[in-house]
Amino acid sequence: MADSQTNFAWATLLDIAAPDGRRRLHDRLAHALRTAIRTGRLTLGAAVPPSRALAEDLGCSRWVVTQAYGQLVAEGYLVARVGSATRVSWTPHTAPPRSSAPRTPVRAPIRYDLAPGLPDLRAFPRRRWADAVRTVTGSAVHYDLGLPDPAGHPVLRTTLAQYLQRSRGADAPVHCVSVCAGVTDGLVRTCRALHAEGITDVALEEPGWGRLRDAASSAGLRVHAVPADHDGLRVEELVRTPARAVVVGAAHQFPTGTVLSPARRAELVRWARSVDGFVIEDDYDAEFRYDHHPVAVLQGMDPGRVFLLGSVSKTLSPALGLGWLLAPAALTQALRAANPVAAAPPVLDQLALATFIDRGWYDAHLRAARRRFRSRRDLLVHTLATHLPHSRVSGTAAGLHLLLHLPDGTDARAAVQAATAAGLRLADLDTYRTAPSPQRALVLGYGNINDTEIPPAVALLTEALRSTAPHPRADTGR
Amino acid sequence: MADSQTNFAWATLLDIAAPDGRRRLHDRLAHALRTAIRTGRLTLGAAVPPSRALAEDLGCSRWVVTQAYGQLVAEGYLVARVGSATRVSWTPHTAPPRSSAPRTPVRAPIRYDLAPGLPDLRAFPRRRWADAVRTVTGSAVHYDLGLPDPAGHPVLRTTLAQYLQRSRGADAPVHCVSVCAGVTDGLVRTCRALHAEGITDVALEEPGWGRLRDAASSAGLRVHAVPADHDGLRVEELVRTPARAVVVGAAHQFPTGTVLSPARRAELVRWARSVDGFVIEDDYDAEFRYDHHPVAVLQGMDPGRVFLLGSVSKTLSPALGLGWLLAPAALTQALRAANPVAAAPPVLDQLALATFIDRGWYDAHLRAARRRFRSRRDLLVHTLATHLPHSRVSGTAAGLHLLLHLPDGTDARAAVQAATAAGLRLADLDTYRTAPSPQRALVLGYGNINDTEIPPAVALLTEALRSTAPHPRADTGR
Repeated sequence: MADSQTNFAWATLLDIAAPDGRRRLHDRLAHALRTAIRTGRLTLGAAVPPSRALAEDLGCSRWVVTQAYGQLVAEGYLVARVGSATRVSWTPHTAPPRSSAPRTPVRAPIRYDLAPGLPDLRAFPRRRWADAVRTVTGSAVHYDLGLPDPAGHPVLRTTLAQYLQRSRGADAPVHCVSVCAGVTDGLVRTCRALHAEGITDVALEEPGWGRLRDAASSAGLRVHAVPADHDGLRVEELVRTPARAVVVGAAHQFPTGTVLSPARRAELVRWARSVDGFVIEDDYDAEFRYDHHPVAVLQGMDPGRVFLLGSVSKTLSPALGLGWLLAPAALTQALRAANPVAAAPPVLDQLALATFIDRGWYDAHLRAARRRFRSRRDLLVHTLATHLPHSRVSGTAAGLHLLLHLPDGTDARAAVQAATAAGLRLADLDTYRTAPSPQRALVLGYGNINDTEIPPAVALLTEALRSTAPHPRADTGR
Repeated sequence: MADSQTNFAWATLLDIAAPDGRRRLHDRLAHALRTAIRTGRLTLGAAVPPSRALAEDLGCSRWVVTQAYGQLVAEGYLVARVGSATRVSWTPHTAPPRSSAPRTPVRAPIRYDLAPGLPDLRAFPRRRWADAVRTVTGSAVHYDLGLPDPAGHPVLRTTLAQYLQRSRGADAPVHCVSVCAGVTDGLVRTCRALHAEGITDVALEEPGWGRLRDAASSAGLRVHAVPADHDGLRVEELVRTPARAVVVGAAHQFPTGTVLSPARRAELVRWARSVDGFVIEDDYDAEFRYDHHPVAVLQGMDPGRVFLLGSVSKTLSPALGLGWLLAPAALTQALRAANPVAAAPPVLDQLALATFIDRGWYDAHLRAARRRFRSRRDLLVHTLATHLPHSRVSGTAAGLHLLLHLPDGTDARAAVQAATAAGLRLADLDTYRTAPSPQRALVLGYGNINDTEIPPAVALLTEALRSTAPHPRADTGR
């Protein structure tokens, strides 16, 4: 091999003969040569050995070598000229060394999960979900496996329309319902449509989910924070913004846990009419109300002015990526036009959800979950009152989270850090604000925790608050 | 009921007693009252009957009526004041009548499908896919059902990295691979990241998929059409645009069916380096090459300059909504930052695909599909040559479509319309252009058609061309 103008050791190619069970010999030879060229071991202009010579060296047929060379010629790494040696025609980039793999921060293992936003992952109806998927994978017609309708599969849209009417009191004609990946996805689509309609400013509740703000911004709207009090969003503050659209959690606001009062509901719809604007109702946690029958959606009060967003993320699992968007009839076309490349969720998942609802499994799951969460919430409230008598719980008896107001002077952030270090996940209310507030509170989610874990979790929280207390009057309980 | 200030016939509420199996009596009463208020039959200020009186009329307990009234008070439709009647507090919007449901155009039923873009939907491996979903639904850990990693589940990312290295010759470190919903979704994410990096202009092949143009535009980039010839994208024309990024189908261009030549591959990467730009490689149809071993991806030539996009839409089904995006290591953070609300596909689907690949089922499916498509393509080419001897087929023996060049003077659009009216789906090349061209051609996809359907489909096509032929010299075959 002395004639090849390179310092490459052809013998290193010999290890291509090591069987890896999957690839044919000429593939492995091509791979080895490609790697040598890419890494600079075979340099630009270097001649590769004549195929017969290399085949002899490697103990393989000449066909294997010509196949590998041909492959690399087609890929632009080698160039073959009649009457001349085949040569390397490629030089790797002399770029700065690539940044190394990002380091993932080392976290304490999670022992107890009181972070908000998750349903009971242990109670996910695995068997029934798998049954629903298996059923529809067998029964779908061929064209269901083709290009999906961007608005969602008609079967699921029909099922959702019925569900929203029956269970949420919505005004939901099928052609106004579309399927999306969840509330965030639905909000992006809605905001893009509103932007196309000339709306430039949207208001969101403060405190609130940061992801909703991100969704509205990414759709090109300016966002305005409007405070929520014990009656929900303060409409008189909304009026002072230039917003012509507002995102509101009417059934159970996150993270304050309040329910929009009857007077505010009416006021909000009147506001939308007066500014020729829209309300975007995030039907968050709506299925879980423990003191009262769930309140019907605001959307029914004015279907021409209210968008309704919902998902199964808080009822089944956020990993399913299934939600819905009910839009005013006059805007369904605008919604589609403003989202030309938006895709519906995978069709088999859509059909599985339709089957899951149609068989009554969704209602059964919600009934069981409601019972479970009601007693778990009672247990959590009782345990907190015992251990932390100077802290106060707020939030309607609904949903999957509550607020724990801490005594003045508490360093909520330090307490959360101490709790996290001890393996307890939970959230500081301040992380859901755009500006700091003197109010000190924690947001505790009880979706994804066992009842038996609540006493030790609250004991850890009590210890975290004690260890970070600024002065002797701290809320140390007994 | 004479004391209620309304002309509402309370008797109509009696039909709430009709059992519907699902809802309790007070829910049905609330629903009936809500509907009456929303539709204007119960008007603002009207008093509703005292609960005792209505209960007597309806033959139900008073509790049912107070529950229903309480529900509507909470929803803002009624207002209750101590010492006074409960009254309607809501008035429906006097909006223009809502636009009626959109009319769906009446289409001829599809008898034969030669439209491009679909794999063989009849050959979707339903049983194995359902098995994979059932397996992972049972075996996933609880936290897999929680909030998904926006970059994709680590198990699938690892499997894809191995697949892309082994099967496509990519340089694919796991942390550079993310899971997305398909090539369009991956392109939107990529273009948003490039935009954040200061790139404002992107070039796309002409002719090409309109959805790719839409995706790039919706991410805020200006798009430039660059022609592709028999060697693929014309790099010398690319140089004349202000673009610093280009989307290219290197393995099999859609719709021309050409493969980017070895010289052009190298030229393209050199161009990217010279403008400090990027190549976005759409690995379209790459798994199906019939005359030759599949060419490795361009991405391997310069992993710091080339994004690689792929999906299972052309191999398994577009309804699965599963794809991947391999990004330069230096841009993985930018990619995430520029797409703050992008979500990965449903986690169980991701895990199912990983299982499907890891068990060797994907490779087996591809092998079988390759055999099937190779013989089907041969059959189609042969049948076209017999029936339409004056038309010429072009496109490398690869993928799921070919181009049929029509004789000068043919009205391709009229022929497509005639064929569609007869139940044959296919596409005019012009629909993939941004500007008209004198070249007349049809794009024929043979993914989603049975071998036995090819002769009658080509006969229909021949008839459509004959019936729309402008003069006697038209391509009427025998």
